[in-house]
Amino acid sequence: MAGSLYGKNFRVMTFGESHGPAIGAVVDGCPAGLELSAEDIQPFLDRRRPGQSRFTTKRNEKDEVEILSGVFEGKTLGTPIAMVIRNTDQHSKDYSDIQNVYRPGHADYGFDAKYGFRDYRGGGRSSARETIGRVLAGAIASKLLASVGVTVTAYSKAIGPFEITKFDRNEIMKNPLYMPDSEMSEKAQSYLTEKMSECDSVGGIVECRIDGLKAGIGEPVFDKLDAALSQAIMSIGAVKGFEIGDGFAASKAVGSTNNDSFYTDDDGVIKKRTNHAGGILGGISDGSEIIFRAAIKPTPSISKEQETVNSSGENVKIVIKGRHDPIIVPRAVVVVESMACVTVLDLMLSNMSARESYFQDFYS
Amino acid sequence: MAGSLYGKNFRVMTFGESHGPAIGAVVDGCPAGLELSAEDIQPFLDRRRPGQSRFTTKRNEKDEVEILSGVFEGKTLGTPIAMVIRNTDQHSKDYSDIQNVYRPGHADYGFDAKYGFRDYRGGGRSSARETIGRVLAGAIASKLLASVGVTVTAYSKAIGPFEITKFDRNEIMKNPLYMPDSEMSEKAQSYLTEKMSECDSVGGIVECRIDGLKAGIGEPVFDKLDAALSQAIMSIGAVKGFEIGDGFAASKAVGSTNNDSFYTDDDGVIKKRTNHAGGILGGISDGSEIIFRAAIKPTPSISKEQETVNSSGENVKIVIKGRHDPIIVPRAVVVVESMACVTVLDLMLSNMSARESYFQDFYS
Amino acid sequence: MAGSLYGKNFRVMTFGESHGPAIGAVVDGCPAGLELSAEDIQPFLDRRRPGQSRFTTKRNEKDEVEILSGVFEGKTLGTPIAMVIRNTDQHSKDYSDIQNVYRPGHADYGFDAKYGFRDYRGGGRSSARETIGRVLAGAIASKLLASVGVTVTAYSKAIGPFEITKFDRNEIMKNPLYMPDSEMSEKAQSYLTEKMSECDSVGGIVECRIDGLKAGIGEPVFDKLDAALSQAIMSIGAVKGFEIGDGFAASKAVGSTNNDSFYTDDDGVIKKRTNHAGGILGGISDGSEIIFRAAIKPTPSISKEQETVNSSGENVKIVIKGRHDPIIVPRAVVVVESMACVTVLDLMLSNMSARESYFQDFYS
Amino acid sequence: MAGSLYGKNFRVMTFGESHGPAIGAVVDGCPAGLELSAEDIQPFLDRRRPGQSRFTTKRNEKDEVEILSGVFEGKTLGTPIAMVIRNTDQHSKDYSDIQNVYRPGHADYGFDAKYGFRDYRGGGRSSARETIGRVLAGAIASKLLASVGVTVTAYSKAIGPFEITKFDRNEIMKNPLYMPDSEMSEKAQSYLTEKMSECDSVGGIVECRIDGLKAGIGEPVFDKLDAALSQAIMSIGAVKGFEIGDGFAASKAVGSTNNDSFYTDDDGVIKKRTNHAGGILGGISDGSEIIFRAAIKPTPSISKEQETVNSSGENVKIVIKGRHDPIIVPRAVVVVESMACVTVLDLMLSNMSARESYFQDFYS
Repeated sequence: MAGSLYGKNFRVMTFGESHGPAIGAVVDGCPAGLELSAEDIQPFLDRRRPGQSRFTTKRNEKDEVEILSGVFEGKTLGTPIAMVIRNTDQHSKDYSDIQNVYRPGHADYGFDAKYGFRDYRGGGRSSARETIGRVLAGAIASKLLASVGVTVTAYSKAIGPFEITKFDRNEIMKNPLYMPDSEMSEKAQSYLTEKMSECDSVGGIVECRIDGLKAGIGEPVFDKLDAALSQAIMSIGAVKGFEIGDGFAASKAVGSTNNDSFYTDDDGVIKKRTNHAGGILGGISDGSEIIFRAAIKPTPSISKEQETVNSSGENVKIVIKGRHDPIIVPRAVVVVESMACVTVLDLMLSNMSARESYFQDFYS
Repeated sequence: MAGSLYGKNFRVMTFGESHGPAIGAVVDGCPAGLELSAEDIQPFLDRRRPGQSRFTTKRNEKDEVEILSGVFEGKTLGTPIAMVIRNTDQHSKDYSDIQNVYRPGHADYGFDAKYGFRDYRGGGRSSARETIGRVLAGAIASKLLASVGVTVTAYSKAIGPFEITKFDRNEIMKNPLYMPDSEMSEKAQSYLTEKMSECDSVGGIVECRIDGLKAGIGEPVFDKLDAALSQAIMSIGAVKGFEIGDGFAASKAVGSTNNDSFYTDDDGVIKKRTNHAGGILGGISDGSEIIFRAAIKPTPSISKEQETVNSSGENVKIVIKGRHDPIIVPRAVVVVESMACVTVLDLMLSNMSARESYFQDFYS
Repeated sequence: MAGSLYGKNFRVMTFGESHGPAIGAVVDGCPAGLELSAEDIQPFLDRRRPGQSRFTTKRNEKDEVEILSGVFEGKTLGTPIAMVIRNTDQHSKDYSDIQNVYRPGHADYGFDAKYGFRDYRGGGRSSARETIGRVLAGAIASKLLASVGVTVTAYSKAIGPFEITKFDRNEIMKNPLYMPDSEMSEKAQSYLTEKMSECDSVGGIVECRIDGLKAGIGEPVFDKLDAALSQAIMSIGAVKGFEIGDGFAASKAVGSTNNDSFYTDDDGVIKKRTNHAGGILGGISDGSEIIFRAAIKPTPSISKEQETVNSSGENVKIVIKGRHDPIIVPRAVVVVESMACVTVLDLMLSNMSARESYFQDFYS
Repeated sequence: MAGSLYGKNFRVMTFGESHGPAIGAVVDGCPAGLELSAEDIQPFLDRRRPGQSRFTTKRNEKDEVEILSGVFEGKTLGTPIAMVIRNTDQHSKDYSDIQNVYRPGHADYGFDAKYGFRDYRGGGRSSARETIGRVLAGAIASKLLASVGVTVTAYSKAIGPFEITKFDRNEIMKNPLYMPDSEMSEKAQSYLTEKMSECDSVGGIVECRIDGLKAGIGEPVFDKLDAALSQAIMSIGAVKGFEIGDGFAASKAVGSTNNDSFYTDDDGVIKKRTNHAGGILGGISDGSEIIFRAAIKPTPSISKEQETVNSSGENVKIVIKGRHDPIIVPRAVVVVESMACVTVLDLMLSNMSARESYFQDFYS
């Protein structure tokens, strides 16, 4: 049972190696009738595409999606939507050095241990290019969510030690780091430039907010909304931590301050005075904003010399060539957003049959 | 698609409300031939059973498991193992006050929003008693793992702000908080006593170590070992964060220090000089110790007066009666351990068909 | 990946060996709010219960269901519904003779080949008692279907070579063979009596009609409604064939007569002039009656002497003792009906999110 | 939950409409290390490709597969294998007449009822071209099976009323109808020619034999080997019936003749004297040849005038143009074989963890 399938109602199967012929995804379970074309998807791809700032790999691919199925006369058919992107700018030769060497911080050794061999070119299946499949599905999910007023917004909360001190939603798309705080973005860029000059790399934190989601989404016990989000986000390469609401800080709090009081506002809507929970209680959305964070490690590919072993078990030194991002965080923003979209949509579809009365209203 | 099913190869379906007739689980996919009796499972249940120290609810149930199927002449049959525990010490009357009131920090409101009504007695399906089903499955998985040298050890890393400063494995089972640091346990107990006297509650951090796992476990992309662990752990009620290895701290590190160097030891075994990654790279185990943490919020049930709303939408005050743990952390330890066992076993079973040569060796 | 889980939205996990402590099922995904009690389920159990006529095993168990979870104040909670029936009339000693012998026509040899050993008492997991779990789930599904006007009716179409020549729906529950043709039932009973006196057993055909199902149910490609029904029905022990509509006869027809012409009736409803297709085209219901058949082999347990081998591989003779049905067909009727109910309901739930407009109507 | 995903361990997601840009499949869960190239797959495609005899549609496409991922240096990587075939010879204009008309015997009406609209060109997703995805996966599964001595052979058992009277395995590939009886093939061809001249179409029966499969494959209860095969085969368009071994004939037999006696041969191998069961008992393979049949209806597309309705509900007449097979059976042979291969392989992978000792042998 390999692991390239995600979702239960809105299902995504992704495929592709970094230097193979193509990367892509098939989405099965998208409701019929949604207006969809490559133009809906391309902006998501462009946000993760390399070559957009000096902080991303110089690999330059247009990453233009072709929709192979599931759309007719501009609308989804309810059948699988297959999407493909050709790999065009592979410099496979760059990787011949690492064919038999296990790069520290990379999946090379694990893949060999599991499968007996691997596509070493550009990381193969464990390349960051794998996330294209996630973004393809996320773009579709995002459009469906938007049609019922649910918006998902991810951004960089921290670059290395530089964490935002304010949240200006309009600023996010204006700086190359996708930070909602222009001042902190400047500082972070200086820090990045410095680390790049040292042949080193930097990590950070992506935060994501989901607005407009009604109370009641998420399934009790194992498929709680926060549990599902957690798997979705932790499955993105380089993510080492996930927290919702106050997260780890809640572990140090006391109940009387950590609990969010409910109240009814003047319009008769049930709300919470605080949101330490991050919008999810008992695994089910409570109608307030959902907010979660992902901790992302520094890019493991650095051009500093490192100690490691080769596949014959010999101790060797390695200097990684190739074109690598000095930081993954900005390009991970849209990937986090995409996985959140797919996850929320999947559980919203599931929720449509939660009550006998829904079933009866639908079929009567 | 409700959410009480977990696992793909070693599958667990749990069931039961806190004050209903019974709680239990059915495990499908346990390999045949494993020696199993209630005595293998009871110690796990006893670790999560209330009434074992002054820091747990006074609800006193023996929680004795009965195995209803799947075992014959002391061995598993390969067929579903159904396990049931009768609920015996319900004080349902304690809960009549909250029938129409949404307790802050609880799932009450979400359940009503989702299903239109709920079993309000003791939290119903969202009660901590739900975790019994997890522990039933975890005990079986643990025994199978032990048979191939894989051990899973969870413990309290922090109680509120009191975090361990040393790790003495033998100490864990000796103090009521399951801390591997007796001194810190004493301090934490004082802190707990103080907060209890203030009618308040406390959170903390559970840490878990998995030893003896070979490299190669975990499936690429969505079913990465850390992603699967994350879902498993985040699905436990009250868990608000998950991190593996250095976790959130990695987001502030640089690549040259965060990368773990590989080396070959004198026995020709590939090892790592450090373990910032926590034993998993690219979602696949790398042969070193796996270490992860779960952030647990303070028990939401506190006997301090709180503001909230009732199901008619009126703003009301609530003082929660009933018998509640002032802290969830110590009883969550065995639940975290159980979910880790089930998750690792599930992916180990999956890995048995990773290579063509495994398939051919098996069938030739 | 063991096989005791069925369904994707309305999921059933069954468990239990014939002579173990209990048999049962857990249903996850039943919509909340359905009025449900043991009284809804018991009539289904009574239809498959032995001891109701001279054509069924003399094993006499009340098969009274206890609901352990998922129901509160007479309504389903949306959480797993666990149901258990104690095994009470086991005569395990009857089976000591067959402990090491492979009964012809039974699963004994396959279970040993697969698992290395088996619960030989009463067939263990491969006993007809396994079907209790299916009936438990089917009873619940049936009630939900009835609430939207979908009825599922199974009956014996043929007992050995005696096939019905008329269809009187009211007759079905009046004769011990559940045949809708009283005359043919009399003839079949005589035939059965004769074969019983010869220590032999008889097979037959169960037919099932699903009325009131709207067009549009079933998923294209692999989860077609007829494909799903086929798996559901073929998974019942002793079923050797499945056909829908004209079934095998269609293979000999020509297109011009096999095609069903559509027409619009005076009320503007689209109907078909014939129903060779059995109510399903391209895997999707077409709004007409669904009709399918299951071929059931003669009970393999006969008291005539038979040749076989034992687990040491020695050629031996066997005379099967124990209390066995001379025919499975009448008791299989309610099992077929149950599996059809679960399957149709599962796909109806799936269909609720088939269109973007359904999603938007639900969430706006 | 749409239905284009099949399999649990060896998973296949297919996609594509008849006149869309492409048709294809992604296989996830194929063990790593299998030598694989387009040349392994093309012969399977060629067997289902149209234009090979006067009994198939004149649509002429090469159907050349491109492997987009999952293969490196000629071997499978263990990652998803995406395969794509471009649609090149669409005559979409042929279908403008049926845009708003429901063809009798086709899925048109069901798709509209389900999704609100459909890709009417060439049947869209319900076209026979959909089966390309199945064949892509089947070719890979077939190669893996062959490596452990399991062979799967399908052929036409009957064309209309003309049924084979002998079985000559070498003859199958020699005649355009894939019949193992050259004489009967001649008669069937004459019959077909006659029906074609009458603008009519013909059905038939495909039979399939699986040799070399050890005892023990198949999971008890719902995922029995015959139940899984049944779903796999019934999910192929136009299949109206499935039977294993004696199938429907068994319903008329008595137990003493229907039971297959076991015996041990001179080499100590457990065998059966007869094979009425068709190689599966209790859902688990018994080591003998597996034999099953699929009933296939006559092609619904005929050029005779037929009565039907249009999407406005008006009663209309239709004469179907386009290029259609007068019989589906010969081209369905390789599709049946493919689905059998995928199903058997899937359950063989599952069986690798059936015993504790397998687990321990693997990990120790």
